[in-house]
Amino acid sequence: MPIEDFKWWGWGDAAHRTEVKPAQGDAIRAELGVGPGEGAEPVALEAVELPPARPLPDAVVRAAGGKEAVLTADADRVRRAAGRSYPDLVRLRSGRLEEAPDAVIVPSSRESVEALLAACAEAGVAVVPFGGGSSVVGGLDAVDGGHAAVVSLDMAALRAVDLDRTSLTARLGPGLRGPEAEKALGRLGHTIGHFPQSFEQATIGGYAATRSAGQASSGYGRFDELVTAVELTTPSGAIRTLQTPHTAAGPALRELVLGSEGTLGVITEVTCRVRPLPDERRYEGWMTRDWVAGREIIRELAQHGEEPDVLRLSDEEETRVSLRLSGAEGMQKKALDAYLALRRRSAGCLMICGWEGDHESVRRRRALGHRRLRAGGAVPLGAAAGRSWEKGRFEGPYLRDELLGMGVFVETLETSHTWSRLDELYQAVGGALKDALGKQSIVMCHLSHAYPDGASLYFTFMARSRAGEEIAQWREAKSAACDAIVATEGTITHHHAVGRDHAPYMTAEVGELGIEALRAVKDRLDPAGIMDPGKLLPA
Amino acid sequence: MPIEDFKWWGWGDAAHRTEVKPAQGDAIRAELGVGPGEGAEPVALEAVELPPARPLPDAVVRAAGGKEAVLTADADRVRRAAGRSYPDLVRLRSGRLEEAPDAVIVPSSRESVEALLAACAEAGVAVVPFGGGSSVVGGLDAVDGGHAAVVSLDMAALRAVDLDRTSLTARLGPGLRGPEAEKALGRLGHTIGHFPQSFEQATIGGYAATRSAGQASSGYGRFDELVTAVELTTPSGAIRTLQTPHTAAGPALRELVLGSEGTLGVITEVTCRVRPLPDERRYEGWMTRDWVAGREIIRELAQHGEEPDVLRLSDEEETRVSLRLSGAEGMQKKALDAYLALRRRSAGCLMICGWEGDHESVRRRRALGHRRLRAGGAVPLGAAAGRSWEKGRFEGPYLRDELLGMGVFVETLETSHTWSRLDELYQAVGGALKDALGKQSIVMCHLSHAYPDGASLYFTFMARSRAGEEIAQWREAKSAACDAIVATEGTITHHHAVGRDHAPYMTAEVGELGIEALRAVKDRLDPAGIMDPGKLLPA
Repeated sequence: MPIEDFKWWGWGDAAHRTEVKPAQGDAIRAELGVGPGEGAEPVALEAVELPPARPLPDAVVRAAGGKEAVLTADADRVRRAAGRSYPDLVRLRSGRLEEAPDAVIVPSSRESVEALLAACAEAGVAVVPFGGGSSVVGGLDAVDGGHAAVVSLDMAALRAVDLDRTSLTARLGPGLRGPEAEKALGRLGHTIGHFPQSFEQATIGGYAATRSAGQASSGYGRFDELVTAVELTTPSGAIRTLQTPHTAAGPALRELVLGSEGTLGVITEVTCRVRPLPDERRYEGWMTRDWVAGREIIRELAQHGEEPDVLRLSDEEETRVSLRLSGAEGMQKKALDAYLALRRRSAGCLMICGWEGDHESVRRRRALGHRRLRAGGAVPLGAAAGRSWEKGRFEGPYLRDELLGMGVFVETLETSHTWSRLDELYQAVGGALKDALGKQSIVMCHLSHAYPDGASLYFTFMARSRAGEEIAQWREAKSAACDAIVATEGTITHHHAVGRDHAPYMTAEVGELGIEALRAVKDRLDPAGIMDPGKLLPA
Repeated sequence: MPIEDFKWWGWGDAAHRTEVKPAQGDAIRAELGVGPGEGAEPVALEAVELPPARPLPDAVVRAAGGKEAVLTADADRVRRAAGRSYPDLVRLRSGRLEEAPDAVIVPSSRESVEALLAACAEAGVAVVPFGGGSSVVGGLDAVDGGHAAVVSLDMAALRAVDLDRTSLTARLGPGLRGPEAEKALGRLGHTIGHFPQSFEQATIGGYAATRSAGQASSGYGRFDELVTAVELTTPSGAIRTLQTPHTAAGPALRELVLGSEGTLGVITEVTCRVRPLPDERRYEGWMTRDWVAGREIIRELAQHGEEPDVLRLSDEEETRVSLRLSGAEGMQKKALDAYLALRRRSAGCLMICGWEGDHESVRRRRALGHRRLRAGGAVPLGAAAGRSWEKGRFEGPYLRDELLGMGVFVETLETSHTWSRLDELYQAVGGALKDALGKQSIVMCHLSHAYPDGASLYFTFMARSRAGEEIAQWREAKSAACDAIVATEGTITHHHAVGRDHAPYMTAEVGELGIEALRAVKDRLDPAGIMDPGKLLPA
């Protein structure tokens, strides 16, 4: 799907919006203290104000393939000017962009990427690689870093698919969006199994550049675990890692490219593991006694290698809000309430478990999972709860757009820690967000991406939007949460990446010498400093 | 076990030698054309000739804690002068060392490592970090890189053990040898599950620095997969990665430290995953129709996530030699031959499968494995074959010492590739070794470390030693194999690391820009170039 078919001001398919039922809307407004007339629809695309486009040097235009290959129309620039964080959405909807790329170039081959980067380095033009535009950490901000102009390098034309059925790997172009890659591989009977919430927009190159983790990563692995080889095109040439299942030949360069977020160069090819399409998929809901009981079930599952392919646990608050927003009404709602009361799980935590694969493997692993779930005191909610989650698994960002339109501030962030410090992190971050947002707010969390040694925590938080001070409100909450993470020695990001928003916390994450090591690599591969200025590394 | 209790001239426990029965010895001599009187026992330690020790600058002696902390006796230097590759053993046994560290220092804390490295950088003294001394790629060669002297930094004093039972991780000192770490954790009911053939000598720091893979890595994971956090002390300070199960905060610095082989700094702490001790261990042998049939069984197992914890397949030649050397004689041998003839597997390939864990998990996974083994035409050899492999799993290097004493040239090397190119690699490397060693040689291989996308190949090769030209003979065979690997785009090493021997092949492995990126990191962390000169990076 071309970029023009996506919303320029919000999430996903321009033809799709999520319906918020009046009762749901009223409930949210009431909880957060939002008045009925608050919020606004986005301005028209033509009305967006953005800085005038600075001209590109002739050498860059030539390297791009001539004037017609350099897109400078406002609409093209607006569509690549931001990711999809709350501040991004606020700026887009209000139609006031302080930054935007001066031009967009869509290179047609790896060779043209190489020529373009060389020309930009020579001419001093900053380059922001662009994949699906789904960054939620300011990864697409058009920072010029003191250079004469900023080019958005849209990788949309590099979309090759080459399957190795014997080795179960696929060489993929970085510009393939999630659904397109899955469709092409699916026709050949295979899947990557990587389904982040950003699936519809995000690209293969973006997955790799940001160390994306998907909803089924317990079963299929995070994207960085699926990548077996990578090609990075930099202003100084290309790095290609060998296509072997493993090597002990020194530090892993593949792991230096993964997570480099465009600051070292552009990912121009990714080889990743694939699997045969699953014959069967079984998703279901369970209700645990409480957050701690659910966490312990997940720890048991992960430490025994018995995790379902999808595994997530909502805390009490997320469970309450999910059930309230699920749209279950009347008889259905009453029946669920009665059942939970009967099983003494009225104040419990919702857990979603999903198994995928051939029938025999699903049967066997599901039985193992059920044993642990029951032993931990969870009670089954059945397949309907699983289907409900599955149906809504990509709807979150659509709903967010509607909430913004209602005058609600809503944002998410994630982190991770070892099992022995996970509760400390949970309390610290949740507490910091609540303090920052005030009493009339919703701060909820789910645990996902479980490992033998720990797990990730994903927070969603909402409050009444402070009209006209949206960015300041966001910054207060975000800083409070990040400071709490740093103080607890959790990671600043489990899978959203660093971008511009987390760059100030990178020194806490990897130390000063760690920053020096990363900077040394950047200086060597990108001596002119044109690759994605202002991202990843602290100023 | 202190270094003085190990053989200075060969492998492992000084009190242990493997017995080669006269019939076995005769068979090997006959196959390789070695005369009965060839070979020699090693010289006495006192008779070893090594270059005179150059004095260390005063500042380094002071940083070490004074003169008595600087070991300069020949015996101390000889014990840290070499690893355990064939050329290392040839040089040690003959008592002629062209290179040796000028002094040995055994720092007592991370702080003293930091002070020492700073002093060495200031004074221009090269540092070779020393763990278990088990490198088989020249990783311990005392190369001065143009500096005034070379210090061997023996990490033997850093041996802390700190278990986190909740997160199933342990913080470990780099100087712990395999058995000591397992014993300490075993007393607490846990195991790392990392059992490379070098287990008896190798250390935690060495495992991490070289990306070690163990015999049970199909089940427990390679060591680089087990490490969750690492501390690297460099001449410019320390890098510590956060102790979280995962992070997407930029390129993975942990993966930059793993495999750095002492060239960036010294690993001063490792946090790795552990597991409860298995209740049960079941090892058994199977015989496949042939190499290709066995390889396909392993591919099926790996691609369905049904690998046993230990999984290895010998090719026809290794199977033949193993059975011949197993010591099975008389009735036992006849019974096996008759059984294999009956099952039409007389010319088959030996496969070892091992399952570990709680009873239920072993039962379940073993049943899954058996289904694939039978479907692929393998026939069971029972638990005796498994026990026989288990009994001899750490004996290989002891046997090698005896073979050297008999006048046999014997060496190993390993590589890996995708399933679709594994046969090409197998043929190329095997053919190159056979060509280099001549008709009267043994070139055998096993497949181990299976992944969904490929596997590693481990070659063992033997010939009559060319007395007085041992190193040249080794170099010819080694170069032929390495050139074949490079031409086939396999990796120069799956788990033996790079050291000095593979450094010339690193450009083929990671490309010129890849080398530049690694060099940039080294220049920043070790600007004086004192850390392990001549290793990892090409000259």
